Amino acid sequence: MSLTDLEELAGEIRELILTTVAKNGGHLAPSLGTVELTLALYSVFDFNNDRLIWDVGHQAYTHKILTGRRDTFHTLRTLGGITGFPKRVESPFDSFGVGHASTSISAALGLLIAAELEHVPRRVIAVIGDGALTGGMAFEALNHAGQLKKNLLVVLNDNEMSIDKNVGALSEYLSKIRLKPQYHRAKKEFEGFVKNIPFRDVGEKILLAANSVKAGVTAAIIPGAIFEALGFTYLGPIDGHDIKAMKDIFSKVGVIDAPVLIHVNTTKGKGYKPAETAPDKFHGIGKFDKATGQVLKKKSPPSYTEIFSQAVIDCAARDKKIVAITAAMPSGTGLKKFAEMFPHRFFDVGIAEEHAVTLAAGMAAGGLRPVVAIYSTFMQRAYDQILHDICLQNLPVVLCLDRAGLVGEDGSTHHGAFDLAYLRTIPGMNILVPKDENELRQMLFAAIGKNFPVAIRYPRGAGLGVKVETEPSELTWGKAEVIQQSQAAEVAIFAVGTMVKASTDAAKLLRTRNISVDVINARFVKPFDTELIKKSARAVKLLVTCEEGTLNGGFGSAVAEFLADENISTPLLRLGIKDEFIEQGTRAELLDMCGLTAEKISRRVLERLNELIFGFLTGIR
Amino acid sequence: MSLTDLEELAGEIRELILTTVAKNGGHLAPSLGTVELTLALYSVFDFNNDRLIWDVGHQAYTHKILTGRRDTFHTLRTLGGITGFPKRVESPFDSFGVGHASTSISAALGLLIAAELEHVPRRVIAVIGDGALTGGMAFEALNHAGQLKKNLLVVLNDNEMSIDKNVGALSEYLSKIRLKPQYHRAKKEFEGFVKNIPFRDVGEKILLAANSVKAGVTAAIIPGAIFEALGFTYLGPIDGHDIKAMKDIFSKVGVIDAPVLIHVNTTKGKGYKPAETAPDKFHGIGKFDKATGQVLKKKSPPSYTEIFSQAVIDCAARDKKIVAITAAMPSGTGLKKFAEMFPHRFFDVGIAEEHAVTLAAGMAAGGLRPVVAIYSTFMQRAYDQILHDICLQNLPVVLCLDRAGLVGEDGSTHHGAFDLAYLRTIPGMNILVPKDENELRQMLFAAIGKNFPVAIRYPRGAGLGVKVETEPSELTWGKAEVIQQSQAAEVAIFAVGTMVKASTDAAKLLRTRNISVDVINARFVKPFDTELIKKSARAVKLLVTCEEGTLNGGFGSAVAEFLADENISTPLLRLGIKDEFIEQGTRAELLDMCGLTAEKISRRVLERLNELIFGFLTGIR
Repeated sequence: MSLTDLEELAGEIRELILTTVAKNGGHLAPSLGTVELTLALYSVFDFNNDRLIWDVGHQAYTHKILTGRRDTFHTLRTLGGITGFPKRVESPFDSFGVGHASTSISAALGLLIAAELEHVPRRVIAVIGDGALTGGMAFEALNHAGQLKKNLLVVLNDNEMSIDKNVGALSEYLSKIRLKPQYHRAKKEFEGFVKNIPFRDVGEKILLAANSVKAGVTAAIIPGAIFEALGFTYLGPIDGHDIKAMKDIFSKVGVIDAPVLIHVNTTKGKGYKPAETAPDKFHGIGKFDKATGQVLKKKSPPSYTEIFSQAVIDCAARDKKIVAITAAMPSGTGLKKFAEMFPHRFFDVGIAEEHAVTLAAGMAAGGLRPVVAIYSTFMQRAYDQILHDICLQNLPVVLCLDRAGLVGEDGSTHHGAFDLAYLRTIPGMNILVPKDENELRQMLFAAIGKNFPVAIRYPRGAGLGVKVETEPSELTWGKAEVIQQSQAAEVAIFAVGTMVKASTDAAKLLRTRNISVDVINARFVKPFDTELIKKSARAVKLLVTCEEGTLNGGFGSAVAEFLADENISTPLLRLGIKDEFIEQGTRAELLDMCGLTAEKISRRVLERLNELIFGFLTGIR
Repeated sequence: MSLTDLEELAGEIRELILTTVAKNGGHLAPSLGTVELTLALYSVFDFNNDRLIWDVGHQAYTHKILTGRRDTFHTLRTLGGITGFPKRVESPFDSFGVGHASTSISAALGLLIAAELEHVPRRVIAVIGDGALTGGMAFEALNHAGQLKKNLLVVLNDNEMSIDKNVGALSEYLSKIRLKPQYHRAKKEFEGFVKNIPFRDVGEKILLAANSVKAGVTAAIIPGAIFEALGFTYLGPIDGHDIKAMKDIFSKVGVIDAPVLIHVNTTKGKGYKPAETAPDKFHGIGKFDKATGQVLKKKSPPSYTEIFSQAVIDCAARDKKIVAITAAMPSGTGLKKFAEMFPHRFFDVGIAEEHAVTLAAGMAAGGLRPVVAIYSTFMQRAYDQILHDICLQNLPVVLCLDRAGLVGEDGSTHHGAFDLAYLRTIPGMNILVPKDENELRQMLFAAIGKNFPVAIRYPRGAGLGVKVETEPSELTWGKAEVIQQSQAAEVAIFAVGTMVKASTDAAKLLRTRNISVDVINARFVKPFDTELIKKSARAVKLLVTCEEGTLNGGFGSAVAEFLADENISTPLLRLGIKDEFIEQGTRAELLDMCGLTAEKISRRVLERLNELIFGFLTGIR
């Protein structure tokens, strides 16, 4: 294709992405930023043989459109449709499934080693954003690749953003490079310089002078010094919207038999004014009006995130020891307002969940009361740090896990389905789940006063619309809340978080069949209310647990353990997410698929009650 | 203290460390390497107010001896004695508990921020090895600290080793610096140079020339370029056994109001010839003869590690697709022999468990069959990568978790108590546990042939001494092995791994009380043998699970879930590690503390049987 053709195609693709995302929601700004980059890559490399891995993958819409998914692109992010991220089962061109940040260089290196051992000549290319580059495992992979000296190609897609504005010293360093013209010098000039410098002893003044200049010189003389130090050949920066320039450099890198990093500058949201102006808002977005960029929001109660946002500010206003930490998500977690009000007490560490958690542990060891807000799915990255740095030392850190449970259209890589299970394995951890937005506030207030680790997990999206008390009443630690209870109850449902409402509705449905059901808001997954469970177990025919999380090791599992340990033989029905990965769809569709609607809960309870009667009649346990 | 006094003290401390470790075992080589560094730090800083964090902490014996633990140092690593790592509950000078690598900079930054917000003038110092620096979270922390521009002091203790020889491009880079004399140049020389360089367009040849020289120049002109790029002022390298030189530079850093990294070269094992010569062997070592350096080994059967070592070689000899990966543990995991035999198929990625796992996923996506060998406790670092990169894509990676269960003297930070529980939460994961060393070989052979993810976990230390078959018989996937079974059995114990032997012995003890016990080797924790459990549940009065792992979410938890789901009311007794962190001691002492000896297992079974009878008689369930 000629350059003109490519530029025309870029326009068409941009239009298709824009139209589709306006309708389905999606990762608009990242994907608009990589249209030209993707076209340049596809013009130079042959991805029937070569391999391309997109870090995170939210910028890969053009890649999807170019590889056989143009006609089905309108199904993007819908149940059974095209997924929002590269996925191996969707296309052979999706060489590696992604969704969480900073994995691409590791995976690309793995593919490259595999090709070499199988004697297949192949280029493997990882495209990674400057945001994802702040994740530690990207550094681990650079460090390893640099030593192996294999001809891995890393394209650094530098748009100065994670989801929000990118942070960290590396980001500042990249900015310095962006601002400089390109320096490339021949060998002898360098050598001459090196030879002519006299050695000196280190004294305070020279030390200071040398150091004040070194940082600047590092960036100026050798723009990619940090990558060069890690064994990469650094090239760039080049304009990531100039197809010709990129094609030129991509065709040349073949001559370098070493790992190469090409630094490409792109504009997030490129070509769509509203997204260029507010790339954070248009990073991942719901339906919007293409003409105005106005988000089409149904009128709904404030989200859990908004409630958290205000609650943590109110706590911080009363207690100077409270600090807040997030990992590249000040907007998403609702901490942006906190950052504005308490700039010295707010820390965005970049995409670095491990550091975020251990930093919090250090702060707690120093007497502060850190609140760490990270999405449930991303907190998985910090399992060891939660265990080893917070809980083993019993430090008072409050972990706030937003987007817990099913997140909807982002699909299998983003559901917060495992948090209750993995957190429960850790000694000393306390796990709270609010049934509504008011309880979230109540729990945060309660957690901050405690002298031990606490995790609170809450769902994506709108609350139930209940009244939120400014001064939340106190919680009794480890105690559940009875929502409805009667002497005649045959069934007691212990419901977690979002499932309290669903279970209450299920109880109503069962009422119409003359089955009386107690509903209990579990509130605490750890430590949970063993006393109330014991009492209920004696009173009813069937105990039920209901949670928006995996059944393997989750709350229902904890109750099953308890009943076994206490030798209580009351039957237990555990409802939750089965031991499998859940695909994309609306939250409503997915909850239904998982059997977590009032209708399906009531049906499962009925079925189990029938089994119990049948089992009793036939003598089969 | 005068310099002479300090040097004399260094000698005494070295002697005390040497004598104690020869008797108790411990981390000899790392701690011998930091005697002078510790003395220099304590001479300059006041740790009544300043704070010192040792990364990993295995090099902190001198620190312990200097801070009130000289007289009790002989109890090092024994039950109730001085721990092998800094621990907050042990001393106020242990500012932050450590044990896993790469956490010190995060924690130190947390402490520094806390001091600043509380207006306490305080220096916070992190000492980190070049090995721990390869861990991604150390980079995340440097990146954050560099941006905050706080006067954090990081001491890079560069001994060119992790436990084994250090790897990675950064390590090569540090070596280059070590070999150069110190360069420190004044400002105008740099500026003059920068001004005189002509800009050039990028062409292939210049590009190549510039790049071939850049890496060298980066290291030569600006030794700490990588740290400078991250916002740190780099000083060094200096001799880490020259107390005067270190004191000089430590006293001067106060004038720099920015994060500073001081690069110190030390020799692992310094002052003790056998350890200097074989620092990997003397990294963490059991009892040895001080005079000769000869390890005092009781004659015992080959270890699980040794069996794994040979098994993976035998597999690789038959199948070219098999590759092996470890994270800085070629000796510890037994992969050193593999590395010698198949150098192109072996990958030591440094202390970088996250990268190790995703690299393996990439290799598997490229058609290889990777085996990843990492200690159970360190695999915690890769929870998200196992879930997101391996299992979500159902890739055939075999994870081998050595040192699973109780590890003994290394204590709470090193027990592999959580693996069964955290791995079980992940859809698609298969978890196998061998009862003896022969079964380990059998399991590895079986796992490598499978088209999905498999984890095998096995304990530290010697096997049972059983005969190891060269050609292991096949395993039926998901099926348990009946060790002993009878019609008359009242109890069935489903035992996991090491607990098969303990349970068989417990069954013998119970036999003497006329209680007949079936013993089953569970073999598979996921998927487990539900059929056999169902059958047993119908036949016996009491089911028992027994595992060397946490009860919260472990194998017994899986069985409790299953019984609840299947509405089976047979009582279940779950034996394992309670929901708490376990301290240090010999493995035998700890197993006894956890109730995992034959004697204690039999007692618990008896107690529960009595409860069941009593409960039946009184009508209390």
